[in-house]
Amino acid sequence: MIGDVLGIAKPLVLAPMGFVSGGALAAAVSRAGGLGLIGGGYGDADWIRREFKQAEGAHVGIGFITWSLAQQPELLDLALSHKPRAVMLSFGDPRPFAEKIRRSGAKLICQVQSLAIARQALEAQPDVLVAQGTEAGGHGGERSLFALLPAVRDLAADKPILAAGGIADRRGFEAALALGAAGVLVGTRFSASNEALTAPPAKKRIVEASGDATVRTTVFDVVRNFDWRGITGRALRNRFTDTWHGREHELVADRDAEVAKYRKAVERQDFDTALIFAGEAVDLIDSVLPAAEIVRRIVH
Amino acid sequence: MIGDVLGIAKPLVLAPMGFVSGGALAAAVSRAGGLGLIGGGYGDADWIRREFKQAEGAHVGIGFITWSLAQQPELLDLALSHKPRAVMLSFGDPRPFAEKIRRSGAKLICQVQSLAIARQALEAQPDVLVAQGTEAGGHGGERSLFALLPAVRDLAADKPILAAGGIADRRGFEAALALGAAGVLVGTRFSASNEALTAPPAKKRIVEASGDATVRTTVFDVVRNFDWRGITGRALRNRFTDTWHGREHELVADRDAEVAKYRKAVERQDFDTALIFAGEAVDLIDSVLPAAEIVRRIVH
Repeated sequence: MIGDVLGIAKPLVLAPMGFVSGGALAAAVSRAGGLGLIGGGYGDADWIRREFKQAEGAHVGIGFITWSLAQQPELLDLALSHKPRAVMLSFGDPRPFAEKIRRSGAKLICQVQSLAIARQALEAQPDVLVAQGTEAGGHGGERSLFALLPAVRDLAADKPILAAGGIADRRGFEAALALGAAGVLVGTRFSASNEALTAPPAKKRIVEASGDATVRTTVFDVVRNFDWRGITGRALRNRFTDTWHGREHELVADRDAEVAKYRKAVERQDFDTALIFAGEAVDLIDSVLPAAEIVRRIVH
Repeated sequence: MIGDVLGIAKPLVLAPMGFVSGGALAAAVSRAGGLGLIGGGYGDADWIRREFKQAEGAHVGIGFITWSLAQQPELLDLALSHKPRAVMLSFGDPRPFAEKIRRSGAKLICQVQSLAIARQALEAQPDVLVAQGTEAGGHGGERSLFALLPAVRDLAADKPILAAGGIADRRGFEAALALGAAGVLVGTRFSASNEALTAPPAKKRIVEASGDATVRTTVFDVVRNFDWRGITGRALRNRFTDTWHGREHELVADRDAEVAKYRKAVERQDFDTALIFAGEAVDLIDSVLPAAEIVRRIVH
């Protein structure tokens, strides 16, 4: 059923991870039978054009951070001009964008992190819901997938639901189906794929990391100057989080100096300081693989 | 296999919830084919004797908070004198108690909340591990079950593992098996059973609550004067958590006055102030049921 809705052979969707899910990765997931979503991130028109071009010939979609899209709504028109299979919206009110997406022929996917957010998203009449557990890498909520997913299932009548957060192998896929999902949305596992835009030393850290070593934090948003209004992101712990997590007020006070240092660290790919978003599923990731092989291992 | 190890027909174990899992509830779960564990809590010899007596005729076990047991190790002898089927230890180093438990003929069950804790627990050579996700009610860790469980499975070779946290119906049971568990440990769902020692107005709140409405917090331990050293407990949010969560230092400063108020609230069963431990699975609980019916609904 989710296959019919999204036009895919395998019920697996690539999470639209900003700076990670480019056109090459999205196209690889789509060619393997799933649906690749380009990560719209904080909205850079040139980047979006380039990555759709990278994916040319494959049916892909795109995902946006809803509150960021609301600041540059013209990016939705740009995205729709590329005829995406689906548009996914997370973190903000999807209702102002729903009608335009539907009229374009694209499917609307809304990601939710709690029952309260699910109730709001349902008012946008999405084609698909994503129930995202706090296990997930990147920004997310506080509810864990294991209890959130069946509760969203009970709330959303017969709406197809994708499970997100903590899924990196076939066991997670089967558990998601048992809890009422129609398929899965997978991020971190693909961040360590050949096709991901992830820097190679960051892929190496994801492969080596234990799930005990992630933290939900705001410190990278403070130093990158993104206003997530208290929503935290799950990242690999490193020297930067060990220094600043729990001391956010001091980081804000010291921001100018720290921003300069942080940018230099990003340039030289120094991941003792720079951010690697990753979910708790890093435990289950022990090698960098082609995206098609990852799809094959998760969905049978 | 877990059935052979614990001598039970159904792979379901009652979580040893302090002040909730008394002898009547433990016996009801055991008679329904699972294994009931009496909640040893903070250790009250008279209470433990009385609840074993309540359970007479049924094969039950007992669970202890390991750091609390270390302060009153004689309680283990008392418990073993009642020939428990199993002893479960959580939150602390199980190794000093393992040999005595094994020699008594009881099975040793160790609960873990992370891979690091799992590695320590395995050194005690337990018969069964419990992987407890942060979804769980009461004290727990930060890792979510969805990714923790398969990671513990990969770590622990062929040791039987029970999944704990967020499980209240058959979907959770099946998902736990898919993720590599041999069975489940269930708490909150039984807190709203006929046989639980939970106060009736607290059972009503569990039935009515949404999983969005729980919080991991230390405020109840501050006001009850239990030294959990930073380990948080998941409880239903109420006026007390809304007032003090995030303001723990002020609560400590004001402790004497607040302790007196808190104790009065407990006496009059005022759950706007008093604690109700509950996990995120409260979403899936919509009535108070006999324990045997809960067992039947979870395990097929």
